[in-house]
Amino acid sequence: MKTLKIGVAGLGRLGLIHAENIYNLKGVELTAVSNLDEEVNKQVKEKYKVPNVYTNYEEMLEQTELDAVCIVTPSGFHTEHIRLALKKNLHIFCEKPIGLEVEDIKQTIDEIEKSDRIFHLGFMRRFDEDYLYAKEMIDSGQIGDISLIRSYSIDPIQGLDSFVNFAKKSPSGGLFLDMSVHDIDVIRWLTKSEISTVWATGTNKAAPELNELNELELGTVTMKLDNDVTALLVAGRTASHGYHVETEIIGTKGMLRIAASPEKNKVAVFNEHGAIRPSSQHFPERFAEAYVNELKDFVRCIRENQQPEVTALDGLRGTEVALACQESFDGNKLVDIHY
Amino acid sequence: MKTLKIGVAGLGRLGLIHAENIYNLKGVELTAVSNLDEEVNKQVKEKYKVPNVYTNYEEMLEQTELDAVCIVTPSGFHTEHIRLALKKNLHIFCEKPIGLEVEDIKQTIDEIEKSDRIFHLGFMRRFDEDYLYAKEMIDSGQIGDISLIRSYSIDPIQGLDSFVNFAKKSPSGGLFLDMSVHDIDVIRWLTKSEISTVWATGTNKAAPELNELNELELGTVTMKLDNDVTALLVAGRTASHGYHVETEIIGTKGMLRIAASPEKNKVAVFNEHGAIRPSSQHFPERFAEAYVNELKDFVRCIRENQQPEVTALDGLRGTEVALACQESFDGNKLVDIHY
Amino acid sequence: MKTLKIGVAGLGRLGLIHAENIYNLKGVELTAVSNLDEEVNKQVKEKYKVPNVYTNYEEMLEQTELDAVCIVTPSGFHTEHIRLALKKNLHIFCEKPIGLEVEDIKQTIDEIEKSDRIFHLGFMRRFDEDYLYAKEMIDSGQIGDISLIRSYSIDPIQGLDSFVNFAKKSPSGGLFLDMSVHDIDVIRWLTKSEISTVWATGTNKAAPELNELNELELGTVTMKLDNDVTALLVAGRTASHGYHVETEIIGTKGMLRIAASPEKNKVAVFNEHGAIRPSSQHFPERFAEAYVNELKDFVRCIRENQQPEVTALDGLRGTEVALACQESFDGNKLVDIHY
Amino acid sequence: MKTLKIGVAGLGRLGLIHAENIYNLKGVELTAVSNLDEEVNKQVKEKYKVPNVYTNYEEMLEQTELDAVCIVTPSGFHTEHIRLALKKNLHIFCEKPIGLEVEDIKQTIDEIEKSDRIFHLGFMRRFDEDYLYAKEMIDSGQIGDISLIRSYSIDPIQGLDSFVNFAKKSPSGGLFLDMSVHDIDVIRWLTKSEISTVWATGTNKAAPELNELNELELGTVTMKLDNDVTALLVAGRTASHGYHVETEIIGTKGMLRIAASPEKNKVAVFNEHGAIRPSSQHFPERFAEAYVNELKDFVRCIRENQQPEVTALDGLRGTEVALACQESFDGNKLVDIHY
Repeated sequence: MKTLKIGVAGLGRLGLIHAENIYNLKGVELTAVSNLDEEVNKQVKEKYKVPNVYTNYEEMLEQTELDAVCIVTPSGFHTEHIRLALKKNLHIFCEKPIGLEVEDIKQTIDEIEKSDRIFHLGFMRRFDEDYLYAKEMIDSGQIGDISLIRSYSIDPIQGLDSFVNFAKKSPSGGLFLDMSVHDIDVIRWLTKSEISTVWATGTNKAAPELNELNELELGTVTMKLDNDVTALLVAGRTASHGYHVETEIIGTKGMLRIAASPEKNKVAVFNEHGAIRPSSQHFPERFAEAYVNELKDFVRCIRENQQPEVTALDGLRGTEVALACQESFDGNKLVDIHY
Repeated sequence: MKTLKIGVAGLGRLGLIHAENIYNLKGVELTAVSNLDEEVNKQVKEKYKVPNVYTNYEEMLEQTELDAVCIVTPSGFHTEHIRLALKKNLHIFCEKPIGLEVEDIKQTIDEIEKSDRIFHLGFMRRFDEDYLYAKEMIDSGQIGDISLIRSYSIDPIQGLDSFVNFAKKSPSGGLFLDMSVHDIDVIRWLTKSEISTVWATGTNKAAPELNELNELELGTVTMKLDNDVTALLVAGRTASHGYHVETEIIGTKGMLRIAASPEKNKVAVFNEHGAIRPSSQHFPERFAEAYVNELKDFVRCIRENQQPEVTALDGLRGTEVALACQESFDGNKLVDIHY
Repeated sequence: MKTLKIGVAGLGRLGLIHAENIYNLKGVELTAVSNLDEEVNKQVKEKYKVPNVYTNYEEMLEQTELDAVCIVTPSGFHTEHIRLALKKNLHIFCEKPIGLEVEDIKQTIDEIEKSDRIFHLGFMRRFDEDYLYAKEMIDSGQIGDISLIRSYSIDPIQGLDSFVNFAKKSPSGGLFLDMSVHDIDVIRWLTKSEISTVWATGTNKAAPELNELNELELGTVTMKLDNDVTALLVAGRTASHGYHVETEIIGTKGMLRIAASPEKNKVAVFNEHGAIRPSSQHFPERFAEAYVNELKDFVRCIRENQQPEVTALDGLRGTEVALACQESFDGNKLVDIHY
Repeated sequence: MKTLKIGVAGLGRLGLIHAENIYNLKGVELTAVSNLDEEVNKQVKEKYKVPNVYTNYEEMLEQTELDAVCIVTPSGFHTEHIRLALKKNLHIFCEKPIGLEVEDIKQTIDEIEKSDRIFHLGFMRRFDEDYLYAKEMIDSGQIGDISLIRSYSIDPIQGLDSFVNFAKKSPSGGLFLDMSVHDIDVIRWLTKSEISTVWATGTNKAAPELNELNELELGTVTMKLDNDVTALLVAGRTASHGYHVETEIIGTKGMLRIAASPEKNKVAVFNEHGAIRPSSQHFPERFAEAYVNELKDFVRCIRENQQPEVTALDGLRGTEVALACQESFDGNKLVDIHY
């Protein structure tokens, strides 16, 4: 079995996770990385024995022989980096979102579809064992037809300062584009329905400093879907207890809750505060296994020459819906989505 | 201490609960009941040693010396029965809603306010120990300012047939007026804010027979409140696991969940289905103690000549908001509420 | 229905609870109290409108016409107070234990049995809704035959100082006699078996000050029962999180846990400590309803002239087993119990 | 980094797990397997591309160049297979127990210690994230000194038939040697104390067919440890809800429960049975990650030439205690353990 040579573009928080996961995959070589920060590059080179290290993405593509690239650069560069990789005939694993503008994304998808390369999008929740367990229960009819789905993504308040610093430098795209795309994808994936109308509300009570950044600390979206499903979505940045990602599905025959409490593990602590279940503290902890699983699936897809279940179109839909949420919030009105 | 003489009007499911609770209160006599069904009256007379039994409300008021009346008749009669009781100078405990039409309610409130009688409205959740515990945490600042509140009231599917029969005979007022008024009251009570805009959605997937009755099986309302709070509300009639009444409050410093699972008691059962917490099955079980507590408070208010915290205006607001929810659902549009 | 006149003997912590509960019972009058502390007596007289207040138990019996007495005096006086009440032909509600010495208890039981009076023993857990729910599941065969039962009673560390002060003045009888009798009764009640052999261990790590008092802070007993059941029992005085009373039953078809976590209510709190279920803090809170229910049952037994399910013999057995536990701990050996 | 060549001896249920985990480890080659069943061998050869397949352990050692061997053969062969591997100068990963007889184990340990080879024993719970989290809390003093530890290992009833078939062919060593050694190791590991006295009880109520096999379906052991700790241990074979492995630690400042309910994942299901947390169904599911982690640690130890934290002596102690439990049960007496 031929060793797959993969390069990682971008070594931010998530890029480092992907680099480590690729390094640990059997049959795979972390052949190259490209990243602006030379200090980080040096550490990664040593830690994962990376033969080729660049500060420039295009140089990496030009100078190293690769089978695939893992794109974890800032969102604004994604479509360009996808196109460059396609020109080099590389398989692509790309973090969400595909891009920030709908037309740009559509053109990129055209190019992806014209190629025969594997394109894998980083909707890692689809590879989390809890979500997969729920998906299987739903698909096997155990809770009947879905009437309602509710999904929360609330970041821990510990991360607020670093988010503020980040948002001051470059626009995040807003709460819905930055955070809710995962929930939007989960909603579409579990219900097999498209979202037709949205109404978004929100507040900055817990982080008034976000007002001047035109960002939201807590946002809510109510969605009507095709097939008579309602979806409720909450996104936030200030959970005291940790990283709260929860999804509830109410079906005609039963109800599921995925991670109603963000349990860190199976330990309960009884102390002066009561009976406590410690919480997951951040996404690398909560989705550690899902991040490994999606890369394993990427490798499997390449080896079996099979497109992954999650498609570039799923990425486009997520962006379209998130933009409609932002429009609804900005105008305080119902927004119908026309794909 | 003088014994309080109380009459109960209406001996449906909830009327029987109130009758029993009044019978068991110390210092109180269940002096009379009025109710159409003579068979039920006979049983109640025997069980609770009721000296005066009537099939007609007015006769009860005319012929029995009472201090107070507990009105549990069908909602359409409430305002009339309140007025008749006020004419007899009786203190009034009235089940929600005060009435079905806003103008009628307003006039009734006028008459209540002109009298010096105690008027106690049956929003029993305000007397439930779980809600009171949360209320105290909120009011003492333990979760900071409220940003979001979510409240579910989902009836058990076991009660669906009897609801359908009931709704065939007399209109329930619709899901929002019939069920959500409790959640609306909880939202107003906990946030101390008024609701300004609503959007309601819903479906009958689990009970298509409700379509022809113009009823909803599952409804969702998103609400904007004064003071920058969003509220999410779900009402339903087909929970498989029991009577699911849950309220979540997200504050700037923490989050509370009241009855996230409708635990029947403190017992966990481990059997072939997994690790199970049995669920409350209906409102008389879930709110047994709250129903007693609200009557104790009614008696206390009479004895101490003090108006209860929950007012007739709270009842009016509940109806106004519920009607706006219905209007939003019917027209599939945002509805602003002007009080 | 004749009003029952009840006197309460002893107004310590639990005596006050019984006094209040009797005061609130319909059809019952809190006719008299006897208690050494005149300040407490004065408060109780006012709060509950008690017509007759004594500092001497015999005087109360002599001078007040009573139907029944509720004995909550220090354990060392119980048998004497029972005998005096029987001479006055009173029905008796007596707190556990009946007495401290086996022979004394046996003679007292003889006198109880010769009388036709109702004798109700304060094993309130038999009247707790959680225990009753489990009992019903067991008796209806839902978990098959019982193989193992585990029962914990751990007092909160907040109460340690007051216990130390109490134990300095008068011997508690030791951890097993003072605390475990409730678990012993629950074990006998749920399994319908007698305990034949015990081995007890323990430590004072969390409260070394108990060493000089010859008391235990944490004790464990393993028990063999007739009918091939094993019981594990833990008693303690230093729980950080509250008042931890838990019972587990492993049957051949399933397993039950009663209050695996001592949930104070149905509220979950999410804050910087994690996902928290607040805990019950002391026995008056945990068993508030059970204390009411046992008195209701006492009244019912008197009115229906029916001996209660829990008997004086149950009290004797509890003491016999607790003494065997103490003997086992003192001698570090297996002790067989011969009734 | 040199690729490590590892052979697996024994391809039963657990052997297959180890083979797969070794196959997936980066920097490691599953170079050979030896196993009696040729059909299984054929499947494994194909699935994991194993170059060398044997039906005889010694042949594998003779004919294949290996760095290490993973011994998962029947317990009765362990000491012999360890000695043969040492002669070939191989590093050894050995499943528990090291052997069935104390003298034989002691001689084997002598030989292990005389060699410079890494010897890693399969106490995988030490590599489970939940146990490690608890261990860290304990070691950092967060629950104070340990007073009591309780540990359950209850197999699912689904596995009973296959156990009965297995036990008919070859003796399991009994419930305590077969199952409780993991709990005994956890108790010693977490408390850092040795077990000095034990009393064991048990029953076959749920599986009377075990009587004739001289096996136990449910066993209980109470243990006194050095350092004033008591341990309670339950082992069983007939849990209705799944694979129940739970450990509780009561310290002077708090209490921990590891997997109080054997939660399969983070999903809660609400259906006609109540609010359900699905359970882990068997050890490969519950300890999937721990099995991977212990092999990673084995590889790390080899590469860094460092003996693992878990030693051969830990294996000996487990066997000595388990044998004492069996002796206690057989004689219904306290048994002191002299190491």
